Amino acid sequence: MDIDEIRSDTPGCASVAHLNNAGAALPPRPVIDAVTEHFALESTIGGYEAADRNAAAVQHFYDAVAGLIGAHADEIAYVENATRAWDMAFYAIPFTNGDRILTTTSEYSSNAIAYQQMAATKGVSVEVVPDEPNGTISLDALEAELVKGGVRLVSLNHIPTHNGLVHPVAEVGRLCREHGVLYLLDACQSVGQLTVDVNDIGCDLLSATGRKFLRGPRGTGFLYVRRGVVRTLEPPFLDLQAATWNAPDGFEMRQDAVRFETWERYVAGQIGLGVAADYASALGMPAIEKRVLGLARTLREALAVRPGVTVLDKGVRPSGIVTFTVDGHEPFAIKAAAREHGVNVNVTSPISHGYDPHVVPSAVRASVHYYNTENEIDRLLSVLPGTA
Amino acid sequence: MDIDEIRSDTPGCASVAHLNNAGAALPPRPVIDAVTEHFALESTIGGYEAADRNAAAVQHFYDAVAGLIGAHADEIAYVENATRAWDMAFYAIPFTNGDRILTTTSEYSSNAIAYQQMAATKGVSVEVVPDEPNGTISLDALEAELVKGGVRLVSLNHIPTHNGLVHPVAEVGRLCREHGVLYLLDACQSVGQLTVDVNDIGCDLLSATGRKFLRGPRGTGFLYVRRGVVRTLEPPFLDLQAATWNAPDGFEMRQDAVRFETWERYVAGQIGLGVAADYASALGMPAIEKRVLGLARTLREALAVRPGVTVLDKGVRPSGIVTFTVDGHEPFAIKAAAREHGVNVNVTSPISHGYDPHVVPSAVRASVHYYNTENEIDRLLSVLPGTA
Repeated sequence: MDIDEIRSDTPGCASVAHLNNAGAALPPRPVIDAVTEHFALESTIGGYEAADRNAAAVQHFYDAVAGLIGAHADEIAYVENATRAWDMAFYAIPFTNGDRILTTTSEYSSNAIAYQQMAATKGVSVEVVPDEPNGTISLDALEAELVKGGVRLVSLNHIPTHNGLVHPVAEVGRLCREHGVLYLLDACQSVGQLTVDVNDIGCDLLSATGRKFLRGPRGTGFLYVRRGVVRTLEPPFLDLQAATWNAPDGFEMRQDAVRFETWERYVAGQIGLGVAADYASALGMPAIEKRVLGLARTLREALAVRPGVTVLDKGVRPSGIVTFTVDGHEPFAIKAAAREHGVNVNVTSPISHGYDPHVVPSAVRASVHYYNTENEIDRLLSVLPGTA
Repeated sequence: MDIDEIRSDTPGCASVAHLNNAGAALPPRPVIDAVTEHFALESTIGGYEAADRNAAAVQHFYDAVAGLIGAHADEIAYVENATRAWDMAFYAIPFTNGDRILTTTSEYSSNAIAYQQMAATKGVSVEVVPDEPNGTISLDALEAELVKGGVRLVSLNHIPTHNGLVHPVAEVGRLCREHGVLYLLDACQSVGQLTVDVNDIGCDLLSATGRKFLRGPRGTGFLYVRRGVVRTLEPPFLDLQAATWNAPDGFEMRQDAVRFETWERYVAGQIGLGVAADYASALGMPAIEKRVLGLARTLREALAVRPGVTVLDKGVRPSGIVTFTVDGHEPFAIKAAAREHGVNVNVTSPISHGYDPHVVPSAVRASVHYYNTENEIDRLLSVLPGTA
């Protein structure tokens, strides 16, 4: 991996030490160009006319994303963002009263709110599977709950937003298959960071965003729906993209993942997200993953030996997301001070992960990507309070 | 209205005679610049960091759109497109078995599919109110149905996609208020074309897109929700933008229209849509409407006297959307030939409006905007078949 070349292909690298990749990463030049050029074309010849001219690039999105995660192109839906992708899957599940949903302590607030809404409207039971001491989901506890029966859905994230761990998602997948239970994976923070293969994982549904580690545009995301599962799910919304109107009084849903789409869309974003998937595939996810985890380890080790710094990460296989606190200093103040020095980090708040029994106050979140450097990590360390 | 200045402020005018404004209009330079510059800023300093820096422009969207349609800023939600805006409103209505939905013969397929889905899942009854002979909704027939009782929703579009008419939406609003019935208006084709004032119309909910007559970016739309109605509707999806998680097992929805939003979004598009609303307001909707309707009349009159051409428009107050057929020539062939000559038109298909008893085969759809000229109309006429 030629980091200099990669950085010169990322205009933002000249401006900032961007350690907020779990928020939104810096896009590479091919993504920037694809989005900018299509938008300019829309402005020059018309929106529909531009989509016609770039129809191959629009369509290529499906192949590019499918190729990245080991899926078939007809298992991919283009959706406006990861939340909507997850929503379209979750709210399509025909829950009935008493159905059990199993999740983890690290579930994100938006998903949790959706569970609570489903609990209120359909009478489902939302149950948080206990963790291992290291913070990842306890597979023994999960299996014990699955054995009890009545589980309609196992739903968790691959990498939580706040604690740096990676859940054993393939092991979860094996248990779900063994018990014939639907498995929805929120891969918002993992696609583009780690090798994600839907067959290795064994999930039925997977949602992801464009703007994070995949380095795509904001306002883009995708949903993977396994072929065998599509027909068992009725999307909460249907339009003329998702279904055909058998006028006047019937409709027929698409038989592929497009049933989860809407016709209207951010076309430039779709093209850009396809380019981003190609970009990641060309670099190779194993190489990306290795680089991300190596940089994250460097950061963790440097933080761990600093007086007053507490690294909050959990798990046995830490991700590229590193959260920490500095004694006596507010995370938001640290973020603001870092930004003044051209270093981007973020803050994670307890309300994002309210099932977590180990509630900590807000923490600084630094998230590395393969285009970051040891020098940028040093820059972050140099702007933390309590240093020279 | 200085048309030369307006055209020089619209780069696309130099490339095409764009008569596909009911598909997607050409954006003006301020919109192009706003979107392009924000996207470039995201690429340079990071997505979240760019949103922070342009927070005022992001927030201004609400004021700009509210100002355009006579609403309050807290009655506006930013949504990915008009379909999703309409969906968020429609699927939030607490329908129960036997509820009646009244619509028109010119309803668009995507909405009709949603009605049919609601009919299948909740047992609502979807009823098409008869037209006046001119094709607009019969107010007498609507009133007769409202008097019968049991109507949960009156839902129609302001301007259909295919037949050029304008429904008497304010009169519909008066009847809905008189009978205390919820009123959802699909203003996809009217916002930015006609003066749209939610108080004059009396609608409770109004959905619109950015990309059509408002001249905003693709992948943007908005939903208006009247203050008194917000709390009676529970959006079909909820996330941490729409609701606060009272962890672990409750949530509280926002009390304003933001309860219909999702946190993740196309931020550059939101800024651009706000600029587009400002642009329309600055030119003045009455002036825009006058110009659009005048150009459309010119086009209609020219088409009407051509041998072999049938103008299909209905209504008493025609809009800027003009549909027509040419004897012996396929609409798609006409569209393709026009595009070869730098003239953009579209084709409308019967499946888009399957409640319409006057089903016609596909037709050419030419839709004018205020930046179009008589010369561009002549260019369209010159490329139609059967002419020199």
